[in-house]
Amino acid sequence: MNNKIKWLREKIRGLDMQGMIVSNPVNIRYLTGIDAEGILLITRKENHYITDSRYIEEVRSIITIDDEIIVHNASDVNSYDYENFFSFCENVGFEETYITYNTYKNYMQRYKANRLEETENILEKQRMIKDENEIELLKKACELTDNCFSYITKFIKIGMTEKQIAFEIEKYFFEHGAEDLSFKTIVASGKNSSMPHAKATDKKIENGDPITIDFGCKYKGYCSDMTRTVFAGFVPDNIKPVYDLVLKNQLQTEKDMKDGASIRMLFKNVDNDFRLHGYSFVHSLGHGVGLDIHERPFISYSNDSTLKENMVVTNEPGIYLPGEFGVRIEDTALITKSGCINLTKSDKNYIIVGTNNYASNIIN
Amino acid sequence: MNNKIKWLREKIRGLDMQGMIVSNPVNIRYLTGIDAEGILLITRKENHYITDSRYIEEVRSIITIDDEIIVHNASDVNSYDYENFFSFCENVGFEETYITYNTYKNYMQRYKANRLEETENILEKQRMIKDENEIELLKKACELTDNCFSYITKFIKIGMTEKQIAFEIEKYFFEHGAEDLSFKTIVASGKNSSMPHAKATDKKIENGDPITIDFGCKYKGYCSDMTRTVFAGFVPDNIKPVYDLVLKNQLQTEKDMKDGASIRMLFKNVDNDFRLHGYSFVHSLGHGVGLDIHERPFISYSNDSTLKENMVVTNEPGIYLPGEFGVRIEDTALITKSGCINLTKSDKNYIIVGTNNYASNIIN
Repeated sequence: MNNKIKWLREKIRGLDMQGMIVSNPVNIRYLTGIDAEGILLITRKENHYITDSRYIEEVRSIITIDDEIIVHNASDVNSYDYENFFSFCENVGFEETYITYNTYKNYMQRYKANRLEETENILEKQRMIKDENEIELLKKACELTDNCFSYITKFIKIGMTEKQIAFEIEKYFFEHGAEDLSFKTIVASGKNSSMPHAKATDKKIENGDPITIDFGCKYKGYCSDMTRTVFAGFVPDNIKPVYDLVLKNQLQTEKDMKDGASIRMLFKNVDNDFRLHGYSFVHSLGHGVGLDIHERPFISYSNDSTLKENMVVTNEPGIYLPGEFGVRIEDTALITKSGCINLTKSDKNYIIVGTNNYASNIIN
Repeated sequence: MNNKIKWLREKIRGLDMQGMIVSNPVNIRYLTGIDAEGILLITRKENHYITDSRYIEEVRSIITIDDEIIVHNASDVNSYDYENFFSFCENVGFEETYITYNTYKNYMQRYKANRLEETENILEKQRMIKDENEIELLKKACELTDNCFSYITKFIKIGMTEKQIAFEIEKYFFEHGAEDLSFKTIVASGKNSSMPHAKATDKKIENGDPITIDFGCKYKGYCSDMTRTVFAGFVPDNIKPVYDLVLKNQLQTEKDMKDGASIRMLFKNVDNDFRLHGYSFVHSLGHGVGLDIHERPFISYSNDSTLKENMVVTNEPGIYLPGEFGVRIEDTALITKSGCINLTKSDKNYIIVGTNNYASNIIN
């Protein structure tokens, strides 16, 4: 049986559960490598994965004998089989933060467990600490992101639309081995940059625009996340102090992040410095990155835990001035015993883009 | 108050509920046009939308006075406010097929309603019947899809990879006004076409390959969905009879679909004809299309209801021969009193693509 499933079995035994129903496909991928629609049942002695005819071929090709997973086509599993999976089990775990209320009721009918027990995100919590293989994949996703950034800064020209730039980023990712995007690419220029979650629009890049580019890709399931705010033509004088303040805090957070660091203090330090300069901090400071683009730990004031070695988190302070502009600078970083290592490594000084006119650069 | 919210208020009154918590963002978009993260509370007399600072500017710009929606920043809403929304309410509806078990428990604590009542997908059921404006948007999404297909059949060349073709489709959509994709574009060639839900791979198109292209875009939130199986170079003799059989059934279904038609019979007719010729029907025959790419009604054997005027559904019979090839032909169609109108209108006869060699067609 693979190590992750072994770990889960020990964990649920410790919680006095005799089995678990794993429904969240991201957790299933974490445990098994399977990327399909289906359900994983950890029973007393066996591991069962139930999928349908659309995926069965693919699933069988992914898992190995070592995984010890019995794969079923849902159409071959009858109600008697379902009852048997957990018969004589007192407590069976389920994912209360993933399945709907309705699915919970269905599980209660379908499985013959005495009780379905909440598992309080045991898998999501375990996923916070990355193993060697996961770190390799995260590094690869971040490397692709750095390469993409270096490409896109040369590509951007004044007169292009935000959408054109976003699209070129996505094209780059797909042409260079990304499995998918981490999330829809954000390219927000001029006033649009004041919205932390802006979508790319048909607005054209103008001289003097700040351009916030927030983007990332998935490599074999694992995400990257990086933001840079670059400048079209020149850096306007009114933006410089804000940029400098954001960067100063991003670099300070980078220094402070390490195994044992208080998450609340990391947030509080940035929040204090922003307030001191008359700005407020509307966004969180960061989040975990893994098979999900936003996962635990969340780096915000309400989180009273600490960073741990081999967590991978973003460091993304930002200042947003509605109707004016915004600046965000973000890296994905690996937490170590003594500090952190940025997995995204692109330059964070002022970056000027688009100094040539777009129209004169198109050769068709 | 807008008509859709008025309808919902009457509906829940009929169910003896004094309010409803709408959590599904697609249902919220349907009712209000708001495309953000937040929650819609239909209380005795008012409509409240609670979002956070990231979206508040955008949301306020979308809704009109006519909508009669009070917008709140979540950070300004305290536990006392939450208790007040449904105070003295006996029954308040919630979306049991959308919210998680955990969210249900949180709602129970947060809102002071006597009971949270399941609403049995009232909004999803209402969304099955499209109004004039929705039909216009669906038509527009389908038109974009037809135009994209006509472009892509000329673009495909032997030697290109499935991913390249998928990417070109997506680029076309974004450059021509689509808001998003309906779903990740499927381009499955040769043996890959035997998997109904294949992803585009790095496999190159070879002479004699069938290529199943399943794609669609969103226009102002509304989806399109179309599949064509085209042929690289020529139509192999072994595929012809399968293609003809799928097309015959697709056209027969097109004839049979109308207001009042039994969904089960539509499915059964195709299933029977496939079996008669020695094939099985592993896929469903279709599904509703709207703000969600897969929504009610689902055209399968287990659905014992009938089609209704102004439903928009797909008609997508397919035959999949593992290890060999697959053929699927799909349109998105509007159901009328007397029949149906295909909103996707691309040719369904044999289509030959890529007759020139790729390499010789690149001009860099």
